[in-house]
Amino acid sequence: MTFQRITAADLEILRSIAGAEHIITEQEKLLPYSHDEVPGEKYRAYPEVVVKPKGTNEVAAILAHANRRRIAVTSRGAGTGLSGAAVPMAGGIVLSFERMDKILEVDRDNLTITVEPGVLTKKINDLLASHGLFYPGYPMSKESCTVGGNVATNAGGGRAVKYGVTGRYVLGLEAVLPGGEVLELGGKRVKDVTGYNMIPLIVGSEGTLAVVTKIILKLLPLPPAQVDLLFLFSDIEKATTFSSAITSKAKIIPAAVEFMDHFAVELACQYLQETLPHQAGALLLVQLDGATENELLTACETLGELAETMEVLEIYIANDAATRKKLWQIREIIAEAVKAKYPVQSNEDIVVPVSQVSAFVTFLHQLAQRFNCQVVSYGHAADGNIHARFLKRTDQSQDEWEIQLPLLLKEAYRHAAAVGGTISGEHGIGAKKRMYLPEVMGSAEIELMHRLKKAFDPRGILNPGKVLP
Amino acid sequence: MTFQRITAADLEILRSIAGAEHIITEQEKLLPYSHDEVPGEKYRAYPEVVVKPKGTNEVAAILAHANRRRIAVTSRGAGTGLSGAAVPMAGGIVLSFERMDKILEVDRDNLTITVEPGVLTKKINDLLASHGLFYPGYPMSKESCTVGGNVATNAGGGRAVKYGVTGRYVLGLEAVLPGGEVLELGGKRVKDVTGYNMIPLIVGSEGTLAVVTKIILKLLPLPPAQVDLLFLFSDIEKATTFSSAITSKAKIIPAAVEFMDHFAVELACQYLQETLPHQAGALLLVQLDGATENELLTACETLGELAETMEVLEIYIANDAATRKKLWQIREIIAEAVKAKYPVQSNEDIVVPVSQVSAFVTFLHQLAQRFNCQVVSYGHAADGNIHARFLKRTDQSQDEWEIQLPLLLKEAYRHAAAVGGTISGEHGIGAKKRMYLPEVMGSAEIELMHRLKKAFDPRGILNPGKVLP
Repeated sequence: MTFQRITAADLEILRSIAGAEHIITEQEKLLPYSHDEVPGEKYRAYPEVVVKPKGTNEVAAILAHANRRRIAVTSRGAGTGLSGAAVPMAGGIVLSFERMDKILEVDRDNLTITVEPGVLTKKINDLLASHGLFYPGYPMSKESCTVGGNVATNAGGGRAVKYGVTGRYVLGLEAVLPGGEVLELGGKRVKDVTGYNMIPLIVGSEGTLAVVTKIILKLLPLPPAQVDLLFLFSDIEKATTFSSAITSKAKIIPAAVEFMDHFAVELACQYLQETLPHQAGALLLVQLDGATENELLTACETLGELAETMEVLEIYIANDAATRKKLWQIREIIAEAVKAKYPVQSNEDIVVPVSQVSAFVTFLHQLAQRFNCQVVSYGHAADGNIHARFLKRTDQSQDEWEIQLPLLLKEAYRHAAAVGGTISGEHGIGAKKRMYLPEVMGSAEIELMHRLKKAFDPRGILNPGKVLP
Repeated sequence: MTFQRITAADLEILRSIAGAEHIITEQEKLLPYSHDEVPGEKYRAYPEVVVKPKGTNEVAAILAHANRRRIAVTSRGAGTGLSGAAVPMAGGIVLSFERMDKILEVDRDNLTITVEPGVLTKKINDLLASHGLFYPGYPMSKESCTVGGNVATNAGGGRAVKYGVTGRYVLGLEAVLPGGEVLELGGKRVKDVTGYNMIPLIVGSEGTLAVVTKIILKLLPLPPAQVDLLFLFSDIEKATTFSSAITSKAKIIPAAVEFMDHFAVELACQYLQETLPHQAGALLLVQLDGATENELLTACETLGELAETMEVLEIYIANDAATRKKLWQIREIIAEAVKAKYPVQSNEDIVVPVSQVSAFVTFLHQLAQRFNCQVVSYGHAADGNIHARFLKRTDQSQDEWEIQLPLLLKEAYRHAAAVGGTISGEHGIGAKKRMYLPEVMGSAEIELMHRLKKAFDPRGILNPGKVLP
């Protein structure tokens, strides 16, 4: 598909819509809009122009013009994505939502919050805490990401095991089609079977179907009590077996269950200059929340007893903020610790059925060995969501790494599919994984996706080069 | 759109696919397939043939043939629907799933159950109870409906306030497109952002987009403790104000909150020959569930204290099965009680933001008065889902009723839309409400629905005359 280049006449029209001061065309100022958090030149591309619209009408006018002229349009939140979804691979316009950053309403009677897409996700819960409410759908990157980006990627976070991901909380969307038509979908209602449910199709579509301009989110009362537990096990198999027993045997639904394999623990501890008292081969962080401290202490006892029967090495409990922070820092530092030691890496986001986590982690280590690289794995154990990072050995040449990596990934994805898993649990497909989609999806599903794309965006201007293979 | 009539040659092919003994063509045996639970001739239509397929391959072969020949195909579960969605308005084939009624697997490690669409919903929880698990997505009609019908209508039930509706539990679908292509969507994974999320689009599409042949449902541990409370208030405003305070003030998420207005209480009590100790103008049934009895008793105390500040007349508590049954029978008998006294009625399913329930019920009573009929209202207070039944007065002629009703409904739906609501929370659109869709949806949304329909079903053979206006 070819797109029209931006002309002086286009710029004139964009200026008349959004105001000259909200248009960027200087190359050096375009740099921040040329990438997300995926490293490497392959997933870097400059827009021809960045436009910062204010309000739905401006978005609609920009889209209608781009659609008429067949100019590519890529929407962008904070650029914290991990799949290249916000990178304008075909040039054209980047729509940046930094000026649409208002929390429009907190409705305490209906337990909803209405926001513009450019709101920092963290700001939502900061505001809600004072009302005793919270929005559970946020991802781990909540300090820096925007809620529009969360909706575009259907972001999931550490608390998905109990609370689900972004999509569960999206009650309503205002979204603009490429022709400029404004859709009003859903609303402040928790049940709705009036016509096709188009919200979950737009959520997670990475800006390829429509451009979201307003979001109504469902809220929950903030659970008053929380406790965090750290379990040390000798190996990943014991840790993940315990993880799945938390719900299936102890009948407890934790808020979060994070695992780290031996290598992840080692790298994190080295980086923090910490030592763990035992030679822990795997670590499991469990967060419980609920109505009362008492209820949680009972649950802790149950989990402690269960863990004892499953050869736990050690258990730490944190029910104050300081201790909690200490327990979580090992998990939270991994990405940084790994990056510091292994700058060249591939950050994966595979999901498998929870019963398969242990076997899959073992498979990943064997696979890495076979391809002469290393792998560190950690992630959301109770969701089956494995953040494996394949790491280039220092003795491996960059060329060899680049040739080997796609072969390795193809095997990893095929094996994920074979055991009932898939290639992305929360990072999305973007530019980075679309060529691998046929490894985990059949041709009928992919063809249908293309037809849906066409139903929303017949001229294909919305975020071209993403999601669809 | 015109469809081909079934010929002898078609019947021959259908027999060769499904076996002659699984084909019905005799008029008297077609009768049960000519209606659902909507009364009246308007929503009754005979199929030309009923086919009872066994297995996905047969479904695919039948669809491929029907698509080639342009024969209408309507899928049918147990026929308990309330919108005419399973009625073959254009004749053609009814695909009845009575022979695809197997529970294929309970996976206790991954907490999933895999079922064929013809499984009675009740059977799922009967089986799961012995494993200490449950499937929370079931509707109130669980004794008689099938899970395939639940998926087709995205059925919601009394426990949606805490647990959500059917769609939240559908992790995977096998579904057949009209051309016979088999889609495998999702799987035993709780997180998945790999490509467009097509499952929630098929769920609730009433068989107009694809035919579901297999369903993977997510399960939860069965909460060990449950308690039910009945609150009597002097009027609906006090009852619904208390209802919304349960979560917004007391920070408790109940499993269910059902309300009944004065007239509903009166009709139910007359029918049961019961009297309520106070002159209750409105009744609120609240169900709590959780890990321990103690936790629930604390919550009951909190709710009791809150209710006292809100002029509750009386509170009854049930924590054993017998008392619980007694509390719920008033709510469960309404439909029957109303039908017995007022055989001609329109059963509505409007949703409004929860803060609007009280005002909307008042509006409905004024509306009924203006149109010289009566209205009884009850339903899922904490979901804002109002089951209003408009009742023909005995002194009103049938002709007048039939002329007045559409005008009344149009006003009711418009007012629902004006306060942020919509026309169906769980019954669906089917044949009954599709002409009213433009009252609550804009033309851009409706046009997009038509394009999505075309992307799935280009020749329009799947359940024609439903959902789309």
